[in-house]
Amino acid sequence: MSDLPKSVKMIEVGPRDGLQIEPRIVPTGEKLRMIDAIAEAGVKEIEAGSFVNPKAVPQMADADELFDKIEKKPGVRYRALWLNPKGLERAIENGHVDMDGKLTITASEAFIKRNTNRSIDETFAQMPDWIAQYREAGIVVNSLGVMAAFGCNFEGYIPEDRVVRLVDRTMKIMDDHGCRLTYLSLADTMGWGTPGQMKSLVGKIRHKWPDLTLKLHLHDTRGQAVANAVAGMEMGVTEFDASVGGLGGCPFAGHKGAAGNICTEDLVFTCAEMGIETGIDLDALVEAAKLSEEFVGHPLPGKVMKGGTLTRFKSEAGRA
Amino acid sequence: MSDLPKSVKMIEVGPRDGLQIEPRIVPTGEKLRMIDAIAEAGVKEIEAGSFVNPKAVPQMADADELFDKIEKKPGVRYRALWLNPKGLERAIENGHVDMDGKLTITASEAFIKRNTNRSIDETFAQMPDWIAQYREAGIVVNSLGVMAAFGCNFEGYIPEDRVVRLVDRTMKIMDDHGCRLTYLSLADTMGWGTPGQMKSLVGKIRHKWPDLTLKLHLHDTRGQAVANAVAGMEMGVTEFDASVGGLGGCPFAGHKGAAGNICTEDLVFTCAEMGIETGIDLDALVEAAKLSEEFVGHPLPGKVMKGGTLTRFKSEAGRA
Repeated sequence: MSDLPKSVKMIEVGPRDGLQIEPRIVPTGEKLRMIDAIAEAGVKEIEAGSFVNPKAVPQMADADELFDKIEKKPGVRYRALWLNPKGLERAIENGHVDMDGKLTITASEAFIKRNTNRSIDETFAQMPDWIAQYREAGIVVNSLGVMAAFGCNFEGYIPEDRVVRLVDRTMKIMDDHGCRLTYLSLADTMGWGTPGQMKSLVGKIRHKWPDLTLKLHLHDTRGQAVANAVAGMEMGVTEFDASVGGLGGCPFAGHKGAAGNICTEDLVFTCAEMGIETGIDLDALVEAAKLSEEFVGHPLPGKVMKGGTLTRFKSEAGRA
Repeated sequence: MSDLPKSVKMIEVGPRDGLQIEPRIVPTGEKLRMIDAIAEAGVKEIEAGSFVNPKAVPQMADADELFDKIEKKPGVRYRALWLNPKGLERAIENGHVDMDGKLTITASEAFIKRNTNRSIDETFAQMPDWIAQYREAGIVVNSLGVMAAFGCNFEGYIPEDRVVRLVDRTMKIMDDHGCRLTYLSLADTMGWGTPGQMKSLVGKIRHKWPDLTLKLHLHDTRGQAVANAVAGMEMGVTEFDASVGGLGGCPFAGHKGAAGNICTEDLVFTCAEMGIETGIDLDALVEAAKLSEEFVGHPLPGKVMKGGTLTRFKSEAGRA
């Protein structure tokens, strides 16, 4: 385990990826309390909302109001998601969003068409426009997110070489347009990955581009998320998207009860016990998870929030 | 990952460790259906019940009837738990239990006293009597289980050297009484471990006794179970106790909602995707988990049973 990172960064996505699928529309005031509690616990980056079609995602309809009202804590970045140029425009216009210069691609042709009505090639063809739109707003594009990088319910297993090619192709487009990829997020959007696949794909990426900062966006759909995160850390991944309480599960028929994002506090527990710094107060984060559970109105799948932290044992002599 | 085992054995403990804490007394007939479904899925070893005080554990009061009625499948071992000489006597007398010559110790002085009303030293002092009782029944003693090997809610972190000393002391007692330790089970009884601790303790044990067959008994109390199992496999662990659906959670106040044993089908999923043979039909096991969920009458925490297996993609061209 000697190649584990000394510290990792948690990017809390519960207020966005977590809440967007919840049946109860969480009022802006409760979202603000949730976001504050998460920041208070020491999380330095929070995806607070998304600028998407409010008809498609009613839970995110208050994005403008939310960002207007966040009382920003120093040192904390309050990020957002956008999926099309109009969303990016709204985020820029809002003026309170901590902007990222990010592009996204999906490794599954079936899923990208279903999700965006565009092919992979068409998505690449639009990248120069995205870069231009970012540049106009003074935002440097340096980041790529690859969705469904491990497998897709609509297509099956994703060949690793395809992911490598997608990254390569994005890099070339960025190079051609005066920017440079330094940050790569691999998303196991539908929870297909296991530790072996994490090590294999992340290993290939690192071997080819050793200087990229790597993030994993993991879903616990099949119970592998913490194991996958550990495998990722062993391969040098230093950033993780995660949701307090494991928010993001599917309450709807068809996938009812399916788990959500990797649970932030369960992964912070892993890190704390393994000597990997996160800068997060685990007990405070558990309180934020409990608050979130109260707001969504049903039990969340997070384990540490029920099993308890080990804080009271930390100061005692028993630690070997 | 080159040191992963080619195959691992799952020991299903749902009918015993899983059900014992459930508020609804599952009738013998339902237990039999559950046990049959698990064996049908390809599990070769099942802890079907325990011979303990029926007043203390009413859920296990039917142990004799249960073992009498199991229609044993060839090649499947139907094991039991006992905690004192009287329990062992009952298991032997039953005549249908596949007996193990096993001793147990607990690594926490606080917990062993609470649980058995004896100290660690007193437990060691009784081992010769246990060995004699086993021998009288023609059972070879070769196995040790160490409970609370990683941490204890009543005592704190367990020093690794203490666990090594407990194993060493048991070996000497076995040697002195004409038997030999070949099988060691380390139990993370209260879900304290993380992958780092698994690798460290299992590594120490393997380094000292490379020929021991190692089993992990993991609880998912703090969300680490699958990650811990993977860490264990990376250190050469080849057997796991596990519960279908993740049975064994705590429905009672105080620890309400705390997770149970590692979920069998979630770990079988890990193995299947990583090319580690278990001999288990995952889809059939998911059906056994759903049956168990129906019998206990509340949702179980297993993830694959809700997120779905990937079987339908296995035969397709997509696999890289």
